[in-house]
This record gives sequence, C-alpha cells and structure tokens, in this order.
Amino acid sequence: MANEPPVDYKSAGVDIEAGNEVVRRIKGLARGTYTPGVLSELGSFGGLFALGNRGLHDPILVSSADGVGTKLRLAFMSGVHDTIGVDLVNHCVNDILVQGAEPLFFFDYLATGRLDPDVAVKIVEGLARGCRENGCALLGGETAEMPGFYADGEYDVAGFIVGAVERDRLIDGKSIAAGDVLIGIASSGLHTNGYSLARAIVFERLHLGIHDPVPELGMSVADALLSTHRSYLGLLRSQLPRIKGMAHITGGGITDNLPRVLPPGTEAAVDLGSWPVPPVFEWLQHGGAVPQNDMLRTFNMGVGMILVVAAAEADDVLAALVAAGERDARVIGAIHRSAEASPLVRYRA
Amino acid sequence: MANEPPVDYKSAGVDIEAGNEVVRRIKGLARGTYTPGVLSELGSFGGLFALGNRGLHDPILVSSADGVGTKLRLAFMSGVHDTIGVDLVNHCVNDILVQGAEPLFFFDYLATGRLDPDVAVKIVEGLARGCRENGCALLGGETAEMPGFYADGEYDVAGFIVGAVERDRLIDGKSIAAGDVLIGIASSGLHTNGYSLARAIVFERLHLGIHDPVPELGMSVADALLSTHRSYLGLLRSQLPRIKGMAHITGGGITDNLPRVLPPGTEAAVDLGSWPVPPVFEWLQHGGAVPQNDMLRTFNMGVGMILVVAAAEADDVLAALVAAGERDARVIGAIHRSAEASPLVRYRA
Repeated sequence: MANEPPVDYKSAGVDIEAGNEVVRRIKGLARGTYTPGVLSELGSFGGLFALGNRGLHDPILVSSADGVGTKLRLAFMSGVHDTIGVDLVNHCVNDILVQGAEPLFFFDYLATGRLDPDVAVKIVEGLARGCRENGCALLGGETAEMPGFYADGEYDVAGFIVGAVERDRLIDGKSIAAGDVLIGIASSGLHTNGYSLARAIVFERLHLGIHDPVPELGMSVADALLSTHRSYLGLLRSQLPRIKGMAHITGGGITDNLPRVLPPGTEAAVDLGSWPVPPVFEWLQHGGAVPQNDMLRTFNMGVGMILVVAAAEADDVLAALVAAGERDARVIGAIHRSAEASPLVRYRA
Repeated sequence: MANEPPVDYKSAGVDIEAGNEVVRRIKGLARGTYTPGVLSELGSFGGLFALGNRGLHDPILVSSADGVGTKLRLAFMSGVHDTIGVDLVNHCVNDILVQGAEPLFFFDYLATGRLDPDVAVKIVEGLARGCRENGCALLGGETAEMPGFYADGEYDVAGFIVGAVERDRLIDGKSIAAGDVLIGIASSGLHTNGYSLARAIVFERLHLGIHDPVPELGMSVADALLSTHRSYLGLLRSQLPRIKGMAHITGGGITDNLPRVLPPGTEAAVDLGSWPVPPVFEWLQHGGAVPQNDMLRTFNMGVGMILVVAAAEADDVLAALVAAGERDARVIGAIHRSAEASPLVRYRA
C-alpha cells in the first residue's frame, strides 16, 4: 500500500474546483433574479428573504417541490439544456398560483455524475430566465456531483418554490358549488408530464430519432416535445379574486388533477369536444394506439390550467383573459352535485 | 402496428397506482410531523404554512436545499433506508441554524427508476423522524418515478427547508472581530460529506465489504459510515443570542466552511491538537494515505459545528453546552486580524 498513490477527493471523482467555478458563474445569473426581499448572496449557508416589504398582514406561505421528470432525457438527446430550467420554474409557479400565491423565491437541486460546468451553467440560465419572468428570486440551490449515480452527460434537477398569499385571498376551492363553470386555458405542449409514455411511443414504437421531422406537426421531434411549460402567473394575477378554484393539469391529467380542488359532494363534467386537442397529442395517441382514458390521465391534452368560476363571472373572466392576450381560453364544462364518496371528473363526448 | 399492444403508462414504466399507494402511506407519516402553522394536507398543489402564530414582527425566511450525496450508496449496499432521511433533515436544519433560524417546514424530492413502495416509505420514515425531532413540519414533496434514470434499487433524495428568524436576531457574522474564540462541537461521524473519498478508500483501496468488521473501530463498515448526521438545534437554541457567527462543517471541511461566516479583515486560527480526531477519520486517512490538507478540506474531522463567540462569553457558553448534555465542546482556536483578500483558516499544529 505504501507504493500506491494517495487517494484524494479529485481522484475519487469529485472536482471541488470545477464546482467552485460553476458556483462563480451561477452567482451572476442568480443575482440577475434578485428582488427587494433578498438579503443574502449565494454562498451563505441559508438563503435570506425578508417578508416585510410584501405588505402582507397575515401571510400564508405556499410552497411546492417538483422535478422535470423524463423530459430531461429529451434535453440529453438534443443537447438543449437551457429550457429545462424554465419548465421547472414555471411548473412550480403554477403549482402555487392555484392557491392564489405570488412566488417569492426558488431553490434548485442539480445532481450529476460528473459536473460539466458548461451544461450546469446552461441549466441555471434557464432557471434564472424562468425566475426573472415570474418575479421570483433564485435564492440558492445545491449542485451535487455524485460519481456513479448518473450516466455520463445525464443529470437530475428538482425545484422548490416558496410563495405567499394573504390569508383572506387564499384560493382553496371550498366555495365551489354546482352550477359553477370550468374555464380551460391552453397548454403550450406536453408541459412536463407524460414523457415516459411519449418517449416509448416516439422512440420505441415509431422508431424516430430526436431530430427527425414529424410531417403531421411540421416540426422536428425535438421541437414538438421540448416546447416549454408556460407560466400562467402573468395572465391570471389580476383575475385571482374572481376564481374559486384552480387546477394545474400535470401528471395524472385532468382526470386526477381537477378533483384535487373540488369540495365533497361535487363533481366536474368536462366536455371533450369543447376544445381542440392539439395535433401533438393526436400524433402520440395514434402512434401508440393509446386508449383515450390513458391519454386523459397522462397528458394535459391541450388544457394546462382549469379555473372554476361562478357562472355569472365566466364571461367577464374570459373577456379579461382575451384582453390580456390569451388566444385560447374557453368554457370546457361545469360543476354538478355528486353522490360519490370523493369528487371525480366525468367526461362527456 | 395495428397488431401491437397499445402503449399505456404502466407498460412505459410508470406505475401510477404504486405511486398513489406510497402517497397514502406517506400522508400518515407526514401528518405526525404537523405543527400549528400547517394548513394543508399532502395532496393539495402547494403546502400551506401560516407564519402568523410564530409571533415574528419582521420575519426573515432562511432556506436551504441539500442532498445526502454518495452516502446514499451505503444505504443501497446495507439495505438501511430509514436513516438517510434523518441525515438530510438534520443537515438542512443545521444549515439554517447557523443564521439563527428555527425550522418551519421541509419538502423532499425523491427520485427513483422504479418505485419500491417499501423503500420509499422507509426513506420517508426517516424524514418524518428527523422533522419531528426538530419541530419541523414535513409539508410536502415530490416522488418521481423516472424509468432508466436510476439503477435498480437506487434513488436520489434532496431536501428543502424553510425557517424563520426575527430580523434583529439574525446571525450574520458581521460583529466577528480579532480576539473572538472558536468553539468546536463534536460531529457524530462523517455526517453527510466526504463519502466519495471514503468509499474509494474503504471499498477500492482496502477492499472491504459493507458488513466487514473494522477492528480499529470495533464496529462494521456499515455502522462506522452510516452513523447519522446530528442536529445542533436543541443544543444551541438557548445560546443563539450569545453567538456572533456559526459554521456548519459540511463539504469542504473546516477549511472551506469556516471562512464563509468571517467578515473581511479577519482569519481563523485553528489548533489542530485541541480536539481528539475520532478514530474513523484516522482509519480513513491511514487507509488511503490521504494528505492532511485533503482530510481537512473533505471531512469534518470530528468537529461538526463551530461557534464564534466573544472571548468573555466562551466560558459561559461552554458551561451551558455541558449543562445541556454536550460531552464534547471545547475551544479550538481564535479569530485574528488578517491582511489577506478574503478570510481564510490557518491551522496550527
């Protein structure tokens, strides 16, 4: 053993200097997202955020953790690493928006086998852009180099968001009642859910490559599947006082997500013909011969956010959304009384 | 293609029912951690926490994200999955404690290739125990099943913590000055850092197995390396008003972590002989012929937390720590004036 070279951290697969270099480059990106509440710079043990200047009297913190799922594999295949961060931030922003919260700050967790500083910086560029666009500070994060855990060129990334809402403006769905109307707002593609199924169809069943054209869609596989998850914050902020409940359509589709905001004794009737299902979903359904129920429980099918509003408010809300630039929001169903044990969705053809 | 079976989500590697089963079992564990601020149950889109009943006038939120690093591999090798969560929570609690914050709530991100419900529940049992012990609510999390991303039986887990501190009780190290004293408090082992190096030494250099005995330590490899990361919250809570600065000794060791809390114009002198380095570190250093500087920049070397206090306070703080049951806290150095561009640590033999 005396003749063997000493084992140091770098020879064991961890490059502290590369990590420090990434931290330096990331600091500049994060700084560009800072809002007035931020008190700390990246590198202190905890990220500091002062709640005082938000003018909240009885603040409720609303928080969420999320990943990007196997959409990451499309980033690996295409080499496009700077949109995953936008996906992740927008996903998180939408998850707390449904309870009426405005985002305050965001943390990321980025894990790789061996850190490629350029890729890490690309990922954080996306996170920073997503944060800036939502007025949310990228307050910190953890970059973990874990040799042997991730294949070469692969990584995982998770996000954690904290927002706040005044207690009496919390949206909790409790006032939802029979007769209320469902307003669906368009998604911008698959968002961040259903990618394991989509990849199985596209790569294993249809045997397409990431850069192959998809004639039905007039774009490449990469462009069809990597379109970013949109944020609904800017569009919906001014309408929050009119909204009784809101469902972000993520994993589980409308089928599993809409019932999460409905009170006992109610159910949702969703009219399947009421919105145009985007071609990307029809292409996937046809390519995989996927049963309709599986489609509805996996993909957003073109509806990324559903609002529940009183019938008397629906026209005003729709008009406001159109005025704010939304081209695809419409009534897609209604709330009914239900004798079922728990709220559910019934689809009407 | 018409003869091929349809592609559904389960055949693509994602088992929504197994995921729902895990969610049901996790809900009960999480509920056991709830504190008076918690307003939501797991399953709502965002986790809700009311700050109001903390009695804070000008609350600063202090947050951190962390992983467990390659200590996870020891959990995989030994089949012990219910302590990793305690490691993760305590790591996060200590990271915000150094700025004087009391934890409010915690979120986890758990990613696997194929979800083993029993393992997932074991992991969350550890998270819940860690949260309960620190008075911190396990408010939510994300469990991601990502086929092909993680090897069979493997997973990654990250944690996000949010705490709060009154603005005028924030510990920021700004008052640290020459003449102040460093108090080191014992670690409970490697905590969660240095595991890539430790594993290279133990498994590749010494060719030991996970259950092999280590005669120098009187215990097995698993017991030596899986001892849980301790929380310093209970011990230090009452002493926070006396503490000028605090460094949690994690990745980078004393060398990289202590300078993070020192103001410009100061440096730390650490007396290497002033505390007994635990046998586990001597065993690793000897086994890998690891240079001393690498040891000090990788492992905590037996000191998991360092307090900076005024010299006149040191005896009182030490007496209070002893009275609180701490058996191993002592003065390990002092603060000096420095002409260097940034604060650093000098070791004295």
